[in-house]
Amino acid sequence: MAVAELSSPSHTNPRLLHSSQLSSLSTHLYKHRRCSFRSRPPTRYARISCSVAPNQVQAPLTVQVQNTTSKPECYGVFCLTYDLKAEEETKSWKKLINIAVSGAAGMISNHLLFKLASGEVFGPNQPIALKLLGSQRSLEALEGVAMELEDSLYPLLREVSISVDPYEVFQDAEWALLIGAKPRGPGMERAGLLDINGQIFAEQGKALNAVASRNVKVLVVGNPCNTNALICLKNAPNIPAKNFHALTRLDENRAKCQLALKAGVFYDKVSNVTIWGNHSTTQVPDFLNARINGLPVEEVIKDRKWLEEEFTEKVQKRGGVLIKKWGRSSAASTAVSIVDAMKSLVTPTPEGDWFSSGVYTNGNPYGIVEDIVFSMPCRSKGDGDYELVKDIKFDDYLRKRIAKTEAELLAEKRCVAHLTGEGIAVCDLPEDTMLPGEM
Amino acid sequence: MAVAELSSPSHTNPRLLHSSQLSSLSTHLYKHRRCSFRSRPPTRYARISCSVAPNQVQAPLTVQVQNTTSKPECYGVFCLTYDLKAEEETKSWKKLINIAVSGAAGMISNHLLFKLASGEVFGPNQPIALKLLGSQRSLEALEGVAMELEDSLYPLLREVSISVDPYEVFQDAEWALLIGAKPRGPGMERAGLLDINGQIFAEQGKALNAVASRNVKVLVVGNPCNTNALICLKNAPNIPAKNFHALTRLDENRAKCQLALKAGVFYDKVSNVTIWGNHSTTQVPDFLNARINGLPVEEVIKDRKWLEEEFTEKVQKRGGVLIKKWGRSSAASTAVSIVDAMKSLVTPTPEGDWFSSGVYTNGNPYGIVEDIVFSMPCRSKGDGDYELVKDIKFDDYLRKRIAKTEAELLAEKRCVAHLTGEGIAVCDLPEDTMLPGEM
Repeated sequence: MAVAELSSPSHTNPRLLHSSQLSSLSTHLYKHRRCSFRSRPPTRYARISCSVAPNQVQAPLTVQVQNTTSKPECYGVFCLTYDLKAEEETKSWKKLINIAVSGAAGMISNHLLFKLASGEVFGPNQPIALKLLGSQRSLEALEGVAMELEDSLYPLLREVSISVDPYEVFQDAEWALLIGAKPRGPGMERAGLLDINGQIFAEQGKALNAVASRNVKVLVVGNPCNTNALICLKNAPNIPAKNFHALTRLDENRAKCQLALKAGVFYDKVSNVTIWGNHSTTQVPDFLNARINGLPVEEVIKDRKWLEEEFTEKVQKRGGVLIKKWGRSSAASTAVSIVDAMKSLVTPTPEGDWFSSGVYTNGNPYGIVEDIVFSMPCRSKGDGDYELVKDIKFDDYLRKRIAKTEAELLAEKRCVAHLTGEGIAVCDLPEDTMLPGEM
Repeated sequence: MAVAELSSPSHTNPRLLHSSQLSSLSTHLYKHRRCSFRSRPPTRYARISCSVAPNQVQAPLTVQVQNTTSKPECYGVFCLTYDLKAEEETKSWKKLINIAVSGAAGMISNHLLFKLASGEVFGPNQPIALKLLGSQRSLEALEGVAMELEDSLYPLLREVSISVDPYEVFQDAEWALLIGAKPRGPGMERAGLLDINGQIFAEQGKALNAVASRNVKVLVVGNPCNTNALICLKNAPNIPAKNFHALTRLDENRAKCQLALKAGVFYDKVSNVTIWGNHSTTQVPDFLNARINGLPVEEVIKDRKWLEEEFTEKVQKRGGVLIKKWGRSSAASTAVSIVDAMKSLVTPTPEGDWFSSGVYTNGNPYGIVEDIVFSMPCRSKGDGDYELVKDIKFDDYLRKRIAKTEAELLAEKRCVAHLTGEGIAVCDLPEDTMLPGEM
């Protein structure tokens, strides 16, 4: 995925009351507290400053002194503490879901955050809190994002907070959408990118391990996303490795579209498309198991040469063509695919179908090497968990291509051994396999 | 509203079969036709070229020769002609709604189109067609937008077509979202902007009059939006003037947010907020009739000075603050407010509440001068139509401010008399009342 903002890792900065402490106090004390966010350039952290309207002085001024644990900066109208319990009684609302997003000032997030706030993933009765992670450089932009979220009046969006500290942002997070990554600078090799971004994801893994919900679902979008996800999960030993995902859903969506176009059907007739392996040019869009109108693809598209030679290329070149035409990377459709990936985990997978996700290989039925993050076909009962699909066909072509992307991921893993706690990195990446149009 | 792309006005260019003619032919002939869009720089219009996969040659090659009426260029997978009737039987889908969008390559549209495609306005059972109007310069970018829409696999999005010709794009349009406008160049006066954009909206009004659905709803976002809407409706005498709207919903949303922030309540507790008049700095956010938790605002915010002096300023400065912080204009929240404005016309207004829209004054109960486009409080039964709200309080303060924005709109109207068919323009605009952060 093309990406946005680098969140600079930092340590915990306890400064404000933890929300559970807040809620243990009488709600009405806080109901009218209003906080406005101001960044303070010379210091590392932005500050929160709270003001109370003259006619509504109800909160004790000593509240801020009782700091014990950290809480990220809330923003504007979202700093009000609402009596959700009272609302629950009348509206039967569900418990707030905490969603942390890194690279929150970037273009992908600019689409994604509004989708999340509108209820696209969790539905019309699920209130959410958005916790935005940015860099010191992007803090002002994050305020702008928070302002636009305020002005959108989304009833489901109950909290927005912004910070540069992953330990603040990931506190109690039930979802962590890790979109931020450092873009590749001029002349930087893939190995260099692996190292520099790997360090960010190691730090974020540690932060998740320390403060996130024990069942947090982590979706890594920042590139190289498979290996970043591996680094992240290795640094978060107290969170199940199964909870980490690398986004290959945009590749799956693009593959479905290309098959539909070739077959002359609408894209909703294409199902069972797997993206195997790495989110890179070694990825394998699987036409052998894919279906069109319920039939094997090869019964509909009788052109094996196209399937073997052109199909994958068409899927992979999409991002590059888009940049050339549109002048920007595919932020909107990437955000759509993140929503799709999340929805696939919180709604039951349709009977007979599956979805692709880069997940940790740990007892997979396909003979893929263990202990890497590899995109494979998954099904979910809608409980946030998934299982791998069992009845998958392989032929020599598919096996051979899977072996290649597997070898690449093993080479990437050796490159980041210093970040996964497995010794000294040995980096030998023969070619640049970054997808066109991604940075 | 800040805005995007200029659509160059042009004449009708009949080249392809009209959709109604297509549908009168046997569906299966077209089911497998696949068209890919290519722009041809030296000519005024982009071209369509159709290819048929070797295994699916079913369409007669002479189809394109039977040109009689115009049809905009379809894009990629959306050029397939689907048998919606067959789907209707199984899925009980509704008839396709044609939505035309100008400035479709701009940032507001980049948010809006995906919202429309996801079903945010018309719901989960309403298929839509998006007809994108751009300029010659933005055609490649429009292709990029269409590619991202393809890759998003929205099941409700059945057609996407792109063109530089409003006569093509507005054909049978049931909604026309006129977002495109020329941004103000350096040193350009508001009068100059009125003239240059007025010409675009005069042309688009003529095109709507000629080819759009007789009950098309037109929402003008491109600035100066009230007077652009007036010009547009004057050039479309065969479409009810009541069907034209100028967007003041973002102002309303911002006003609600500021009242919520001041009162220390969540924004969903604020209702009955009217924006009166022009979408400019003379606009009047009405706190006299607004309610918080069902109570008059002044019973909750006991600070008349703030309401009179700071409230309006806070609403209006929002766009400028945002640009400073975020570095971009408020595309996301503008798109949200367009969705809100459309939803307000297609869903019944909640009992006792209302929404603001810039509409044609023609027998209004407030004593506002007739024959201009003025933002006023509206209610809808959800049928696309609206009625003005009757029981509105006025005081001297509100009357005085309404008179000022009314005077401005009358002055703007005199500036564009040459475009509304009312004689020679006399332009005397004393001050620049463009909202900060808008171009």
